[in-house]
Amino acid sequence: MGPVARRPEDRLDRLGERELVRRIVAALGAACPPAPRGPGSDCAALETAGERRYRIATVDGVLLGRHFDLSTPAEAAGRKLVHRNLSDLAAAGARPSDGLLTLVAGGDLSAEWLEAFARGAGAAATDAGLEIVGGDVARGPDGHLAAHLAVTGFAHRVLARQGARAGDALLVTGALGGSRLGRHLAFAARLAEGEWLCGQAAVTACTDLSDGLAADLPGLLGTLGATIDLAALPVSDAARRLAASDGVPAEEHAWRDGEDHELLFAVEPGMADWVESAFRAAFPATPLTRLGVVERDGGVRDKQGRAPTGGGFSHFGPG
Amino acid sequence: MGPVARRPEDRLDRLGERELVRRIVAALGAACPPAPRGPGSDCAALETAGERRYRIATVDGVLLGRHFDLSTPAEAAGRKLVHRNLSDLAAAGARPSDGLLTLVAGGDLSAEWLEAFARGAGAAATDAGLEIVGGDVARGPDGHLAAHLAVTGFAHRVLARQGARAGDALLVTGALGGSRLGRHLAFAARLAEGEWLCGQAAVTACTDLSDGLAADLPGLLGTLGATIDLAALPVSDAARRLAASDGVPAEEHAWRDGEDHELLFAVEPGMADWVESAFRAAFPATPLTRLGVVERDGGVRDKQGRAPTGGGFSHFGPG
Repeated sequence: MGPVARRPEDRLDRLGERELVRRIVAALGAACPPAPRGPGSDCAALETAGERRYRIATVDGVLLGRHFDLSTPAEAAGRKLVHRNLSDLAAAGARPSDGLLTLVAGGDLSAEWLEAFARGAGAAATDAGLEIVGGDVARGPDGHLAAHLAVTGFAHRVLARQGARAGDALLVTGALGGSRLGRHLAFAARLAEGEWLCGQAAVTACTDLSDGLAADLPGLLGTLGATIDLAALPVSDAARRLAASDGVPAEEHAWRDGEDHELLFAVEPGMADWVESAFRAAFPATPLTRLGVVERDGGVRDKQGRAPTGGGFSHFGPG
Repeated sequence: MGPVARRPEDRLDRLGERELVRRIVAALGAACPPAPRGPGSDCAALETAGERRYRIATVDGVLLGRHFDLSTPAEAAGRKLVHRNLSDLAAAGARPSDGLLTLVAGGDLSAEWLEAFARGAGAAATDAGLEIVGGDVARGPDGHLAAHLAVTGFAHRVLARQGARAGDALLVTGALGGSRLGRHLAFAARLAEGEWLCGQAAVTACTDLSDGLAADLPGLLGTLGATIDLAALPVSDAARRLAASDGVPAEEHAWRDGEDHELLFAVEPGMADWVESAFRAAFPATPLTRLGVVERDGGVRDKQGRAPTGGGFSHFGPG
């Protein structure tokens, strides 16, 4: 058995990202602890002796041709790498501490471009209080560039994707959809909001919207379901502009498009009004929308009883 | 300016790995703290509130075609990824805690092979007390596979590549050279030895031999130099076998070959005899060789006054 698939059904691009991750986690076996210490949320949460009791760890990357392209300014691509990871830390309510930078780049790539990429990453990291404390460079195939950042932050408690209960209110920051028109490069991770949410015991679960609400909401719900007011979806101006050009309804873009990097979170029913108004007072410039309610039965339904069509963004083939 | 080089002199493969890293660190600017917190050693050392006062962090990877090939058993490649990183933790005297696994793989690669890779990595991690707490998968070019592991450990003090002083004795574990005959897959990181060395205040610097003694010794020395007894180099059986087949002297292989993953360390002159004998008592099965002495003047000289020829392994072109 070699690393290149011989049977079509063994090809990674037939598998789907979720199934690949499931198999890898299974194969890692005893090395892979259950959440919150292990995989399953935006970050791993590891107990520590510090005042902030949990060390929060995650890794994410940007690839040329997928997360940015030949026309993307190098500094913007570097900034995006940092904010993708900061957004995961924000979802865990963690304050950024440090990161390790990995580059795999073709020998034909531009050193000047990579330096500008690193300048963009460095400036974004400094602004957020994140230090880049190490890394690794290796040569990949010509034309290929993959940059990953493994980040560590610290939080007072475990705030994870899991934890929502039936009856909890579902809320989301910002406006959704159409991020490909520019926001996918320009978004700023909701670090202050995430840290604030982590301080509210009534917030039971939180995740950042990286693959699109349609994909990330089921990730937060797990075996639970939700009733969503699709008519109340906070639709971004970009989603409306995109709708005008491609004919797909703006609400569909808000529901399905990836790379919003907004925070989706659940709040205990009795506390939802208080958290909502306190959030608005703390972050008057950050839009906040009550999306709906967590339900005991699985699946996501519109208030009108329709099931929104699924989908989302997956790195490998279907699924 | 795009990511692909337009001028030959801007190509990464013209640059050399060291120069690329230097430029990236410079471009990261204020985000990149000085050692021991920042880059420059095998790991970054970050103060923490725990009983083991330093959190030790590093990242390293394996690439298909470079660190393993199409004929390598998948489990062995996964094990190698883990032990490459454990070896860096060993050089810092850290006990392994947790890691984040990143995979960039072509869509044509084999899911079955990747599962076996993850099984090998998971088993090696479990044996060493390392938990894999998260990760990321992304699709790369067909035929490409890069796996990185960002690891965290904890140590009682900062033991880094830097810190040697003129007069210190230089010692190395194990036997060197010829690792391409199999040891590059089968080596076990010297974790217990590294933790023990970290406990000896007289050990002033330590690094693991990943690029070869010829390249890693200058890394430990910095602006200092050394007098080495080349005749005393611990030459491995594999180096002798390789010498018999390629005609290059076995001592040259011991001096120059990469991926030994032995520990090279410096000890205060008055304590060298004691550390050496205490090490032998603690690790009777681990060879230990006194290589020479750190000198104030730069450069590495043989006891006979010859300058050994330089070289080593570099990921990008020359340098």
